[in-house]
Amino acid sequence: MNKLYHGAAFYPELWSGEVVREDIRRMAETGINVVRIGEFLWSTIEPEEGHIDVSPLAGVIRQLYEAGVETILCTPTATPPIWYTHGHPERLFVNAEGTPLGHGSRQHACTNHPAFREKAAVITERLAQELGRLPGVIGWQLDNEFKAHVSECMCAVCRRLWHEWLYRRYGNVERLNELWGTRIWSESYNVFDQVPQPGPTPFLHNSSMQTMYRLFSMEKIAEFAVEQTAIIRRHSAAPVTHNGSVAFHIDNERLYRHLDFASFDTYASAAHYAAYLLNCDLYRNFKPGRPFWIMETSPSHAGSIASSGTPHPNGYLAAEAVAAYALGAEGFCYWLWRQQRAGSEQPHGSVVSAWGKPGLGYPNVLEAEQARQAIEPAITGSRPAQAEVAISYSDRAKAFLATESHGKLRHRGLVSGAYERVLRTGMHRDLIPEGASLEGYKLLWTPFIPYLSSDLIARALAFVERGGIWIVGPLTGIRTEEHTVPVDAGLGELESLTGTETVFTYAMDGTGTVGSAFGLEAPLSLWSSVYEPVEAKSIGTLIGGPSPGLSFLTEMKRGQGRIVLLGSLPAGDEGNEMLERMLIHYGKVANVTRRAETTIGTIVAPRESETEELWVIVNMNGEGGSVTLPREGIDKLSGERAAAGRLEVGRYEYRMIGFPSVSSRK
Amino acid sequence: MNKLYHGAAFYPELWSGEVVREDIRRMAETGINVVRIGEFLWSTIEPEEGHIDVSPLAGVIRQLYEAGVETILCTPTATPPIWYTHGHPERLFVNAEGTPLGHGSRQHACTNHPAFREKAAVITERLAQELGRLPGVIGWQLDNEFKAHVSECMCAVCRRLWHEWLYRRYGNVERLNELWGTRIWSESYNVFDQVPQPGPTPFLHNSSMQTMYRLFSMEKIAEFAVEQTAIIRRHSAAPVTHNGSVAFHIDNERLYRHLDFASFDTYASAAHYAAYLLNCDLYRNFKPGRPFWIMETSPSHAGSIASSGTPHPNGYLAAEAVAAYALGAEGFCYWLWRQQRAGSEQPHGSVVSAWGKPGLGYPNVLEAEQARQAIEPAITGSRPAQAEVAISYSDRAKAFLATESHGKLRHRGLVSGAYERVLRTGMHRDLIPEGASLEGYKLLWTPFIPYLSSDLIARALAFVERGGIWIVGPLTGIRTEEHTVPVDAGLGELESLTGTETVFTYAMDGTGTVGSAFGLEAPLSLWSSVYEPVEAKSIGTLIGGPSPGLSFLTEMKRGQGRIVLLGSLPAGDEGNEMLERMLIHYGKVANVTRRAETTIGTIVAPRESETEELWVIVNMNGEGGSVTLPREGIDKLSGERAAAGRLEVGRYEYRMIGFPSVSSRK
Amino acid sequence: MNKLYHGAAFYPELWSGEVVREDIRRMAETGINVVRIGEFLWSTIEPEEGHIDVSPLAGVIRQLYEAGVETILCTPTATPPIWYTHGHPERLFVNAEGTPLGHGSRQHACTNHPAFREKAAVITERLAQELGRLPGVIGWQLDNEFKAHVSECMCAVCRRLWHEWLYRRYGNVERLNELWGTRIWSESYNVFDQVPQPGPTPFLHNSSMQTMYRLFSMEKIAEFAVEQTAIIRRHSAAPVTHNGSVAFHIDNERLYRHLDFASFDTYASAAHYAAYLLNCDLYRNFKPGRPFWIMETSPSHAGSIASSGTPHPNGYLAAEAVAAYALGAEGFCYWLWRQQRAGSEQPHGSVVSAWGKPGLGYPNVLEAEQARQAIEPAITGSRPAQAEVAISYSDRAKAFLATESHGKLRHRGLVSGAYERVLRTGMHRDLIPEGASLEGYKLLWTPFIPYLSSDLIARALAFVERGGIWIVGPLTGIRTEEHTVPVDAGLGELESLTGTETVFTYAMDGTGTVGSAFGLEAPLSLWSSVYEPVEAKSIGTLIGGPSPGLSFLTEMKRGQGRIVLLGSLPAGDEGNEMLERMLIHYGKVANVTRRAETTIGTIVAPRESETEELWVIVNMNGEGGSVTLPREGIDKLSGERAAAGRLEVGRYEYRMIGFPSVSSRK
Repeated sequence: MNKLYHGAAFYPELWSGEVVREDIRRMAETGINVVRIGEFLWSTIEPEEGHIDVSPLAGVIRQLYEAGVETILCTPTATPPIWYTHGHPERLFVNAEGTPLGHGSRQHACTNHPAFREKAAVITERLAQELGRLPGVIGWQLDNEFKAHVSECMCAVCRRLWHEWLYRRYGNVERLNELWGTRIWSESYNVFDQVPQPGPTPFLHNSSMQTMYRLFSMEKIAEFAVEQTAIIRRHSAAPVTHNGSVAFHIDNERLYRHLDFASFDTYASAAHYAAYLLNCDLYRNFKPGRPFWIMETSPSHAGSIASSGTPHPNGYLAAEAVAAYALGAEGFCYWLWRQQRAGSEQPHGSVVSAWGKPGLGYPNVLEAEQARQAIEPAITGSRPAQAEVAISYSDRAKAFLATESHGKLRHRGLVSGAYERVLRTGMHRDLIPEGASLEGYKLLWTPFIPYLSSDLIARALAFVERGGIWIVGPLTGIRTEEHTVPVDAGLGELESLTGTETVFTYAMDGTGTVGSAFGLEAPLSLWSSVYEPVEAKSIGTLIGGPSPGLSFLTEMKRGQGRIVLLGSLPAGDEGNEMLERMLIHYGKVANVTRRAETTIGTIVAPRESETEELWVIVNMNGEGGSVTLPREGIDKLSGERAAAGRLEVGRYEYRMIGFPSVSSRK
Repeated sequence: MNKLYHGAAFYPELWSGEVVREDIRRMAETGINVVRIGEFLWSTIEPEEGHIDVSPLAGVIRQLYEAGVETILCTPTATPPIWYTHGHPERLFVNAEGTPLGHGSRQHACTNHPAFREKAAVITERLAQELGRLPGVIGWQLDNEFKAHVSECMCAVCRRLWHEWLYRRYGNVERLNELWGTRIWSESYNVFDQVPQPGPTPFLHNSSMQTMYRLFSMEKIAEFAVEQTAIIRRHSAAPVTHNGSVAFHIDNERLYRHLDFASFDTYASAAHYAAYLLNCDLYRNFKPGRPFWIMETSPSHAGSIASSGTPHPNGYLAAEAVAAYALGAEGFCYWLWRQQRAGSEQPHGSVVSAWGKPGLGYPNVLEAEQARQAIEPAITGSRPAQAEVAISYSDRAKAFLATESHGKLRHRGLVSGAYERVLRTGMHRDLIPEGASLEGYKLLWTPFIPYLSSDLIARALAFVERGGIWIVGPLTGIRTEEHTVPVDAGLGELESLTGTETVFTYAMDGTGTVGSAFGLEAPLSLWSSVYEPVEAKSIGTLIGGPSPGLSFLTEMKRGQGRIVLLGSLPAGDEGNEMLERMLIHYGKVANVTRRAETTIGTIVAPRESETEELWVIVNMNGEGGSVTLPREGIDKLSGERAAAGRLEVGRYEYRMIGFPSVSSRK
Repeated sequence: MNKLYHGAAFYPELWSGEVVREDIRRMAETGINVVRIGEFLWSTIEPEEGHIDVSPLAGVIRQLYEAGVETILCTPTATPPIWYTHGHPERLFVNAEGTPLGHGSRQHACTNHPAFREKAAVITERLAQELGRLPGVIGWQLDNEFKAHVSECMCAVCRRLWHEWLYRRYGNVERLNELWGTRIWSESYNVFDQVPQPGPTPFLHNSSMQTMYRLFSMEKIAEFAVEQTAIIRRHSAAPVTHNGSVAFHIDNERLYRHLDFASFDTYASAAHYAAYLLNCDLYRNFKPGRPFWIMETSPSHAGSIASSGTPHPNGYLAAEAVAAYALGAEGFCYWLWRQQRAGSEQPHGSVVSAWGKPGLGYPNVLEAEQARQAIEPAITGSRPAQAEVAISYSDRAKAFLATESHGKLRHRGLVSGAYERVLRTGMHRDLIPEGASLEGYKLLWTPFIPYLSSDLIARALAFVERGGIWIVGPLTGIRTEEHTVPVDAGLGELESLTGTETVFTYAMDGTGTVGSAFGLEAPLSLWSSVYEPVEAKSIGTLIGGPSPGLSFLTEMKRGQGRIVLLGSLPAGDEGNEMLERMLIHYGKVANVTRRAETTIGTIVAPRESETEELWVIVNMNGEGGSVTLPREGIDKLSGERAAAGRLEVGRYEYRMIGFPSVSSRK
């Protein structure tokens, strides 16, 4: 990584040449050194089917390049032109109620329709051919925010592909019937063609069917990404990404596997800074060793004709930028440069207004640019330090929990809660996808993953044997690959390895059950597993409720490490504290050393180079705070020495402290 | 009644022969002496259209019988196999929005479609022929929970049947127009074929049409039950029932008229024990003199992938069982024996887990079995005592109130509230359907029945003439048979008999009107009738609001008895107390003697034999309490004497006290 | 105006001749001197297509006339008979979800379908021909409550008409593309036929498209009114109106432009008396100089089978009637005379019950009639005084805010809030449509009109030049005619005239921004514009939030007057007081003299004749209060002198005080 990018989304197709020229001039002046263009301009370059002319884009890319602004070029497939769907209702996305969704917005085309795949291939090929080697083109973004506005399509094409997918997965329909347990409610199918899509029914659909349809849909969009990437690579050496999000209906892990780098969009408000950090700690790990990008965030506030967000407090934007770069970002980009004059996102925050004046966030953008310049040498000369703590993350688990939500489970909220617990301990952490290597970690927490694959179990056990501590749960390992209940034991194949017997499963909420562990008592919540330790040791005991005296937290030594089962979610402030004590306890047991002592709302992003360890310290909550420096270091911004001990940090302030490398580390 | 049944729903079709054998062994060990099987297994016994083989069921029934477990056999018509609907969208249930509901859940078939009736007849006939005389088959359940998940079907077949139904009801369309008042809003029809089903409209549909469509639908499902019962009876002597509920879209009274015994499903949580008792006091009266069954209740908690209930506190299950048997149940059955491994109800409480271990409620099931054995001799040797107080119950009234809900009326909540008032007085009570005999009662309360049939009025008047007290209202008698407003008087034909004139009707809520009666003042609520007593006496006077000084409660002597009009619903704690005082007052006037003095949450279920009166006392609220014994009796469980006066009852404790018969009684 | 009408809606088609005769007799007795008939009786007079017989109506009109009751005759087009739609699903209204809405309610026909226009023309022509010259027919009402239950129709006919409308508006599709900015999201159209209706999409539709579809729909229903009016005028000299409302999906200004007088329906409860007064102050100005009618209001409460309202407190009805007549009404009419026995509005308040007895509101109707008689001489001898304060009102602005609601903006609530602020100041006021003359006003407030037409700006500037004060905002002038953002300046062409620069636009809520003005500080709310005064003077300053120190309220002198920009909405009690102080301040600056000092809830409706000024004083909130008489006057009801100074007014009391004309006035 040679530089830090500071960018903005740019829509030259919407403005006159004069405005475009003026905007490019001002970008350079402002410090914007990269733009993203093209994700919605299909109708501009192919106004009628087959009449393609991408040359205007080439001109803009050249103008930008000459002004020192590089380009991320997008494929425009999120919004096919009117000629694609007019007279072709069968090409439209169909929602769960069976309603086709029409032209005029985004993502209205079924991305699995052969016609879509074909037209998308043509336009992407032309863009790649004609623009893919232009100077200034440093990367590609596929489409835009896959499945942000839609989830699973129910059209006739998807129905056919679903049946093919089932055939490939199960081979014969008897196997599907057996694995899904379709004798229940006489669901049994005689041929794959009979298997419905999860449309309207009087009561609930089979859990296996629902979850498999979600996985099918996530695989299909990843497949589209693979197709598109292959086309680009034939003509362009620039790396390919997609702007993802944990909020979309995609399997991020699968998607990025075949792309070159990861990037995401986030519109978390300042109050939810932890959600912002979560994204950085996650997307860093979809392509290990490769910096990620924040492809979209607002310079001030999100908004549309249907909603308007609260602007960031002044100062927050630079804190965001520094935190992102420190946590592994190469690019930090705004949506959008110039306020939309038309469409439906006019109220969205922008760098400049529709009438060409600085937008509300403009002074903050200048602050962020100043920060970027200040930290660039130290950041480009280092890399994120290896975390010792990992939290498992899975979009496939999200699919399971969407199917089996118990009416109130929200994957994102659960994962955010777990992440915040770790963040509060001050331990540096990674959120890692299911398939990630466990090398380098000491403590692994795997919450909210109902189905644990045999592969993940095997690797986690090896990790444990080597000395790692694996905390499993809540809501983890309690379902099979096919989203059914294990019939050998509550935790299936894993259970025998945990020294614990799953006795009961039930929802703790409303039962008055309290959990006791680590010197605290806290109410328990969520659909829970209740254990009887066999060889394991009980760490957390149930008080009250229907099964007092049993355990919700057990620990079993295996090899050099331990498997810890967490069957329930301690709730409320006491519950949060109990979880944090659990994490700190096992962090100590596992010899986690990378832990900073900070006040709440101030973070440390540790980085390292050949010669030093670098702490990037940022106050994210706007209240200021402090961090305890473990030893004397050097303030990388002022060049002065920084004494060991308490270091005060102002409102949204950032600091960089370098410590000479300690050979014993890592 | 020779024995008390303790049962569970069993799904042998979902498990291996080995698991089935093990389950049957454990059932016997646990004390389960009856199972219910078959309600969802159509696809197992007819996997392809016309290929029927019910022999595996015969084997299971035999195994069960040999283990001492008898069988309730179900017809499987709630879930037609895929061959029934695949390629036949016209056979699907269509909801009020016009959306056909698909295969994969339950109740997706229109139960009025000729193809459904035909296929259902075939499969039921085969089951009855081949299994109906097997030893151990002690009863039949038709289908499962008719119209639990759906209400009225709007398909084309229903449309045609609706027109036929209208023709049979009205003879000619002019009569329909006149009775429904269709000149309003130019609704008038020239032929029956033009009458719509109550689908989407810009504003409201005609009340008569809406209510008649509900009645039509309820009659049709009862008709299906009659058809199916006739088939079974050709081949089997075992009695036929259906597992109903006040929550379903059925007319329970009409349904059970042609069945052999009544049964219901209930998943009321422990906090709503009154709702549980309501069911017992109601279903006992659908087939007078014949014990009812609780066909489904959870051993611990209800649940599905879309919701999860709170488990019962330990101890509650045995209290439920004892209360049920004491109130007239012959069977007390769980849903379900073994936790579902697949489908969509995996989180539901069960007797054993999917992996074959005791479920959360298992110890409570053992407690319930212990209780069953303890009380069986006394229960089978007695019968429920005749209640002196009756509350009218009507599912047709529910249809009226669904049509004319004023946006907030919920029939079930209203009826539950009325029931709880009577329960609190300690008077033993029946909930009786509209057509029930009034023989044996002294006090009849008829609330929330907008249309009073001439037949019911005539019988109630005779009851009054003989000395009964009839409390009419609230919301009773204010609409005609066709769901219009009477044009002769506010109460139509009834009004002249009440000595009272209905002056105004309006919603009391928000008007500040207070009712004064029985020494209390309470806010009034609901759509109300305001009276001017003519010959009657005012018992309750309006204070404040738009019509102060008029009456909401009047009393008129007729023959030996009295007609009491209650035009409004006293609300809040004061309102509840006012209603209870009213009930106690008229109970005394009517010489109701069967009234126990208990603390709240402890109930007395009175029974009688040739030689004694038996009080089954149960603490239902888990807080313990006491009951006052009117005279010395014998503790039927310990054999010891029980002194007159206060008897303490522990948390969820049950007691049985026998009193020698007093000849003056009854 | 020769008399005051006191009326009721009457449905002779629903009752027997005997009941009709009795009702007419009682109307005369009660003081009802006008009825409205016919708006739903199409099926009665044309039971089969083409078989028309309106003669029964003629008989009723004659009976009424003989009893001294005049008639407003309605066209029955709100409810086409079953023959119109049976077998013609393509004639039905289609809602935004694409669902056709069926027969049996109201407004189920697409009013743009050629068949509808044709059949409506035929029936209206017959009514006009045969009844239009009958004695007693004093007016016509078109249809009933246009678009009360539906908004924009999405049927195929509307789709075609939409394309024609677009063609007429834009001439060529390139212009539409440019003005709507359709390159965004590749929405661009190649031909008008491709432009969709605003149906279901994954995300939001283009704002221009949404707003234009609303305007198209409002124009179409006004066009229908023009067609129908032309037919009536060929045969009848009686004036034509429609019963509108600010709650319906219509452009009231456009609608009444071609009708003869304005009328409205209102069911505001007594607690919302300000909403009632708003209607009077608005509808008076749709046909300046011509009295308006309250065509429907309840004698006690609104209600239907799906809802039931709170009855008016006794006394409120007469207060309403007096306020209406004093504020310019000629007619005050109830919905309805006799309670419906059938249909779906049975619970609605009525003058007499379905069984022919006085309804709940009857005594209040008698009070209203007494009041009418008492004030008639003074009212008919005077006219409403010219207001000096005007608030702009626009249903087209409502369309803009429906499109760009930010998720929470509700036009009606915003306008009501602004109106209440003016009401509280005691200044007499008009709500005036965009096109109204500004003659006679001194202070003009134009809030919540996102697009200001050049015409309105020009007339307002002339008003300012002449000495008027024009307060612009909040949410005013910030969008173009095509519902896009201006690209020259935040306020487009207006901005240069205000001496102010719009710097930022954002939602104030949640930012902690406080506005300081007129000695008060108040939280600011809504999507806001933030200003830098250039030539203007800052009147209100921002404290805190993301842009402290800038202005939300500026003032610029122009000619003899001033332009005041209000960029945000002060909220809460302090915000309300700040707005009232602003209004009073500018009222003084503008020399507004017509301002009464009253307690909250007591109003003064000023009227004038050749010889005197008349204050009609009414207590509307039921709490009594007082008003300060500026000088000695004469009590017009008692004939006694009324001293200057404080005059007490009782609960719902009304007073009329005459003051001799002061020549300096007006």
